[in-house]
Amino acid sequence: MSAAATPAAVEGRPPAAGPDAVGEMVREATAWCAVHGLVVGDRADPRSGTVPGVGLVHAPFSLLPTHLPESRWRQACELAPIFNELVDHVSLDGDFLQDSLSKTKQVDDFTSRLLEIHRKMMEINKEENIRLGLHRSDYMLDSETNSLLQIELNTISASFPGLGSLVSELHRTLIDQYGHLFCLDSKRVPGNAASSQFAKALARAWDEFNVDRKTLSEVEAEGHVLPDGTLVVKGRTVSVVYFRAGYTPNDYPSEAEWAARLLLEQSSAVKCPSISYHLVGTKKIQQELARPNVLERFLENKEEITKIRKCFAGLWSLDDEEIVKSAIQKPELFVLKPQREGGGNNIYGIDVRETLIRLQKEGGDALAAYILMQRIFPKASLSNLVRGGVCHEALTISELGIYGAYLRNNDKVVMNEQSGYLMRTKVSSSDEGGVAAGFAVLDSLYLTDTSI
Amino acid sequence: MSAAATPAAVEGRPPAAGPDAVGEMVREATAWCAVHGLVVGDRADPRSGTVPGVGLVHAPFSLLPTHLPESRWRQACELAPIFNELVDHVSLDGDFLQDSLSKTKQVDDFTSRLLEIHRKMMEINKEENIRLGLHRSDYMLDSETNSLLQIELNTISASFPGLGSLVSELHRTLIDQYGHLFCLDSKRVPGNAASSQFAKALARAWDEFNVDRKTLSEVEAEGHVLPDGTLVVKGRTVSVVYFRAGYTPNDYPSEAEWAARLLLEQSSAVKCPSISYHLVGTKKIQQELARPNVLERFLENKEEITKIRKCFAGLWSLDDEEIVKSAIQKPELFVLKPQREGGGNNIYGIDVRETLIRLQKEGGDALAAYILMQRIFPKASLSNLVRGGVCHEALTISELGIYGAYLRNNDKVVMNEQSGYLMRTKVSSSDEGGVAAGFAVLDSLYLTDTSI
Repeated sequence: MSAAATPAAVEGRPPAAGPDAVGEMVREATAWCAVHGLVVGDRADPRSGTVPGVGLVHAPFSLLPTHLPESRWRQACELAPIFNELVDHVSLDGDFLQDSLSKTKQVDDFTSRLLEIHRKMMEINKEENIRLGLHRSDYMLDSETNSLLQIELNTISASFPGLGSLVSELHRTLIDQYGHLFCLDSKRVPGNAASSQFAKALARAWDEFNVDRKTLSEVEAEGHVLPDGTLVVKGRTVSVVYFRAGYTPNDYPSEAEWAARLLLEQSSAVKCPSISYHLVGTKKIQQELARPNVLERFLENKEEITKIRKCFAGLWSLDDEEIVKSAIQKPELFVLKPQREGGGNNIYGIDVRETLIRLQKEGGDALAAYILMQRIFPKASLSNLVRGGVCHEALTISELGIYGAYLRNNDKVVMNEQSGYLMRTKVSSSDEGGVAAGFAVLDSLYLTDTSI
Repeated sequence: MSAAATPAAVEGRPPAAGPDAVGEMVREATAWCAVHGLVVGDRADPRSGTVPGVGLVHAPFSLLPTHLPESRWRQACELAPIFNELVDHVSLDGDFLQDSLSKTKQVDDFTSRLLEIHRKMMEINKEENIRLGLHRSDYMLDSETNSLLQIELNTISASFPGLGSLVSELHRTLIDQYGHLFCLDSKRVPGNAASSQFAKALARAWDEFNVDRKTLSEVEAEGHVLPDGTLVVKGRTVSVVYFRAGYTPNDYPSEAEWAARLLLEQSSAVKCPSISYHLVGTKKIQQELARPNVLERFLENKEEITKIRKCFAGLWSLDDEEIVKSAIQKPELFVLKPQREGGGNNIYGIDVRETLIRLQKEGGDALAAYILMQRIFPKASLSNLVRGGVCHEALTISELGIYGAYLRNNDKVVMNEQSGYLMRTKVSSSDEGGVAAGFAVLDSLYLTDTSI
């Protein structure tokens, strides 16, 4: 969860069931996790991560889904295909990407290397006829403005479509069995086919790639690109490249990884994402899109533009002196974010003021490494969070991710869909119940009629 | 796996795939286990077993299914409904059970307590109108006699219907992906719906119990039987009691557990199993059924009797002096088994001779605590066994379990079916490849046309 968030209003749960019922639900739920694959590697087990299937523990989860007004849910779903289209359109404007990120490039080596690959592809006029995007747009409900605000748009390695789908199923199962204790109805947990939708999109991309494909005589090699652009690895032609890594500097410990990334980009394989889709997901581009008249360059439909703009929180670069001044005066209304991707290290509260003053003194490009963002004040609610088989009640805030799948082959848009969702719930920083702040769990959502 | 077994002939695998392919298969397979619930508690993790969903590891499994001639498979499947019927018929003859187990009773406290409950039920003429049996009959292929021989019949807590079904699915998936490397076809792995079949039987038993049921006003209590026999626990009427424990002395650490077992038996709830079904599964009853003219008392159909008798290995009680003499002379042809249920502690080889001589000296009822069984010489084959993410090749022997579900309501036989299977494969005691003898994995089977 990337957003900085302070709970503003606490939403009460319906009358709680007794501790006996909760204990029984926790046992049922953790057993359900074990037999349905809602498991992760256990960090406490040193063997976990060395080989699959070893050192497993149920994924941390919320015992019941988090409430969300149905109107907000529909709003978030409607945005998914529009964001899919937006990413695609922005990705076609190489100069926009290069120009927008030119300052970031000077202070962030990682983005700089990505831009270098992107520039090389521009130079050779690299065509990407088949374009596959598997995105996730993350939102929070801001209680100050009563609005759904976008936190970030993930265009690479959007995580948890598999486990997220399972949590929805877990919650439906628990509500079918225990819902009467909480006056809940499992039909109000939206279906969530994120994993199968993403799998379908990958399979369709494979189809598109292979439909007109010439037969290639098998070439033995450890990975190279043939003159026609075909990517060959160990004698097999690669049709679709899915990045489950490559989005943080840690994934590129040596030049070999950068060479591999370039090799993939040079090939004719479908990349999910291509270097340009990847760059569209940077925070700086998100910020550029929020500037006046920028969305209009990439989308024609005015209604769609209005819908998208409505979910943008305030985003400013630090060359806007007025905003920097405001943030020094009222740091509690802002979040200071590093430009680099991958989350973490956001700066809040009094540290915003101190960091801004320091950066101003350093001068030069120091300011370009950060952006300022409107601070969101999400609704807080009491949740039962289960980790390691143990249930904790805590004050929590939630972030809703909506998956989107997009596939285009030349002029033909093969898929452009909302593809399931992910709810993540974490202990609010203002929780004083003894549960560690920041402790996050997988969650699903429960649609309410309540207007907010 | 309960049978004593020495490998006689080693069956070779088809041409092996390279180590690269095996390594890839192991990673695919262990990941498949994690996401499909083919997991167990890891004994190496102290938290495992304290709460569900924690300390999990993939269940140990065989990388590929074990070969079995299709004719033997069909033979084993055909036996399932006959054994179901046999258990039911034998259970109706309370005197037969009491008489057959009278000697066992004197030397085995556990069986003695079960018989006491059974006797009490006989005294009150307890009726069991709805009878539910979820059994598993275990077999090995004897290479000496080329026959399928029954190892034991489990009438209580027959284990692994859930994980067993998953292993068949795992093997089909692996063969679909890698079968060409081994000339295997996934269609030759029989479908295995053991878990859903057992669930269906339990649900149908619930239906039968409730179909003519009067409405009961809810009674708050921690567990008692109403005058009409209704079992009430925490205010809820119990329709079906499934025993996942209660088959070893360890499950009865105090008188409270025996009182609970009696309470359940006194109730009108459907018991799976009832005390009489439980007793029919004892080794002593298996031995009695193998005596001349005993099957004829319980089954009418001569063909069925012939089929059942064909799968009985030799079984003798130690009051047969001739057999004891033979076993002392040729101990390698016999296994000495304790009468008590629960497996383990079988005696083989030279120890058979020494134990028999000691028991003869002790005299009295010491001999009654054991039975002698024909030693089976199962085929051995090379298998890749995967445990803790690591693959070991070893010389193995396999045991085939066939599940059977039986449900009768008065005169109406609601279900009498073969309900899936379980293959268990263990490292043969004569394996010298360094893998611990006795190390066992879950397996499935691959039907061959080969006659044996």
